Amino acid sequence: MIDTIKMKDGVITIIDQTRLPGKMVMKKIRTIQDMAHAIRQLEVRGAPAIGVAAAFALGRLAKTVRARNKDDFIGQFSSAARELNASRPTAVNLFWATGRMEKALKRNAALDLDKIRELLYKEALDIYDEDYEMSRRMGETGNKLIRKGDVILTHCNAGGLATSGLGTALAVMYAAKKSGKDITVYADETRPLLQGARLTTLELTRAGIRTFLISDNMAAFAIHTKKISKIIVGADRIARNGDTANKIGTLNLGILAQYYGIPLYVTAPSSTFDLSMASGASIPVEERPGTELKFFNGRRIAPEEVGTYNPAFDITSGELIAGFITERGLISKPFKKNIPRILKEHSKNGKLAR
Amino acid sequence: MIDTIKMKDGVITIIDQTRLPGKMVMKKIRTIQDMAHAIRQLEVRGAPAIGVAAAFALGRLAKTVRARNKDDFIGQFSSAARELNASRPTAVNLFWATGRMEKALKRNAALDLDKIRELLYKEALDIYDEDYEMSRRMGETGNKLIRKGDVILTHCNAGGLATSGLGTALAVMYAAKKSGKDITVYADETRPLLQGARLTTLELTRAGIRTFLISDNMAAFAIHTKKISKIIVGADRIARNGDTANKIGTLNLGILAQYYGIPLYVTAPSSTFDLSMASGASIPVEERPGTELKFFNGRRIAPEEVGTYNPAFDITSGELIAGFITERGLISKPFKKNIPRILKEHSKNGKLAR
Repeated sequence: MIDTIKMKDGVITIIDQTRLPGKMVMKKIRTIQDMAHAIRQLEVRGAPAIGVAAAFALGRLAKTVRARNKDDFIGQFSSAARELNASRPTAVNLFWATGRMEKALKRNAALDLDKIRELLYKEALDIYDEDYEMSRRMGETGNKLIRKGDVILTHCNAGGLATSGLGTALAVMYAAKKSGKDITVYADETRPLLQGARLTTLELTRAGIRTFLISDNMAAFAIHTKKISKIIVGADRIARNGDTANKIGTLNLGILAQYYGIPLYVTAPSSTFDLSMASGASIPVEERPGTELKFFNGRRIAPEEVGTYNPAFDITSGELIAGFITERGLISKPFKKNIPRILKEHSKNGKLAR
Repeated sequence: MIDTIKMKDGVITIIDQTRLPGKMVMKKIRTIQDMAHAIRQLEVRGAPAIGVAAAFALGRLAKTVRARNKDDFIGQFSSAARELNASRPTAVNLFWATGRMEKALKRNAALDLDKIRELLYKEALDIYDEDYEMSRRMGETGNKLIRKGDVILTHCNAGGLATSGLGTALAVMYAAKKSGKDITVYADETRPLLQGARLTTLELTRAGIRTFLISDNMAAFAIHTKKISKIIVGADRIARNGDTANKIGTLNLGILAQYYGIPLYVTAPSSTFDLSMASGASIPVEERPGTELKFFNGRRIAPEEVGTYNPAFDITSGELIAGFITERGLISKPFKKNIPRILKEHSKNGKLAR
């Protein structure tokens, strides 16, 4: 397993994923600004990992920040949560994690400041542990859907590098491999930032899974010629009706899945569902700088004067999705009914039911 | 206009398109080997331009090659045609052009060798002139389909850099612009070799057309959010039933067009149709080296041990195509009936009807 993010004795370390696959650079995160920067620059990325990252940043702050008194502490904590929330807009796990840390603060506000510090630090570690455990459970749930010989297409990186554990979509593949099923994976390179080429193929080949890299525009022809039987991806935010924000290109795959009559499964922990959104139309989609499209490793690949459109995510209609692989089992259609039902069974403070 | 390829006094010059948009490098082509290499390396590319390139290489050979006698000349000419034919397998314009040059040789085989040399050189220049004229006519045909305010998606480069003239798909946009229609174009970057980013946006912005660059996986979301009203692409080979080989990613766009209920038009001269192919299933699809996916400008972007699948083209079912914009007008459905009918009206020796 890869230590995508960890916190020990108040010290947070992340893998700088922008340097992969060339270099494995561990980076220490000291301040809220450091973490917001790391999230914004995609040094740490993947919806669940972003959630853990934000929780860790707040946990470390709680443990170490100097405060004149409790009010001062609460003020600094809230302002830190706001700063983290502003780093990226789409993945809801970020807001879920800062929200949960804030709730923990509220719940314990009557205690001594030292006790509060300790409880918040522990809450952050709990979020990590639960994320890890959810990953394992998603793998189990998803593995029930996998048949021997399946040829699976995946997009972006929904692996160990996107969570504290083994990932979301890739957790399913690791579980399938572990249980002795022979599977083949096609990985979209995932432009513009190539998380598929750089991260997913790195993870899968290390795990000994037969993996082929394709460019995103090859997906349709690969489904046709390579008999791809399933598409499995992660998610950044899922609305009540199943509409799903995920890495740009996922909508494309949903339409292909429908055309070819193969299922598209979305793998995500319950922290990725946002019941406040009735549909995907209300999910904010981050647009990133055009330089990501016009330059590659500092080298210009398009003329200066051309415009760009660079949404980092798209919204796939729930109608195009066969089911959601979660730590609470598979959520099938109708999503409007089943998503709220299954999530409400979730314990109220957002902790993982055990 | 860009002088993608030209031949004057027996001297062939091409733009080395692998250096664009950074550098405009003109390259002299002296031998058949030079030209086969330039085609294989995509220094000259685009189905119609490849046809002209092969014709020029044979025209120059006819003009300049030392031969002991006519038989020796014919032997060298045929062997050169075979060598060119082996450079790339998918674009039929290559075989069409070498075939037409060989027919011209056969037709005139009874003449003096000097006369044959002269006629073959002229035949190559005719192919260029006709390609140029076809480009203009495709623009005219296509422009009838364009409405003011159209938002058009295109893929790869089907522009002046892909023909002797103004292109195929882009010829339509140039004609629309010239006739005063306000259009907007979204250009797929077209991985792995980025012809869309490097070449298409260069052409379109120079022509003053409002152009936005996207990565290939953004096409679906861009159709949805940017109200794209038409998709227009070129082609490398079209079977009798309308199945079309074109740059990898075109099939993807055909499926999106059907899903969103917008038309996909394929723009191509009659030399791109291959009536010997009953369907796309028989069209050979070139697979290129995996290094195109694993490296970018010499820098590794994927781990060494991962497999790759790198088809340079895909086959879009005729069912997904709204019509073919040709120099002989628009070919509509049913293609099985209309493609052979319209092409048979074409003059028998393959020359452009005037």
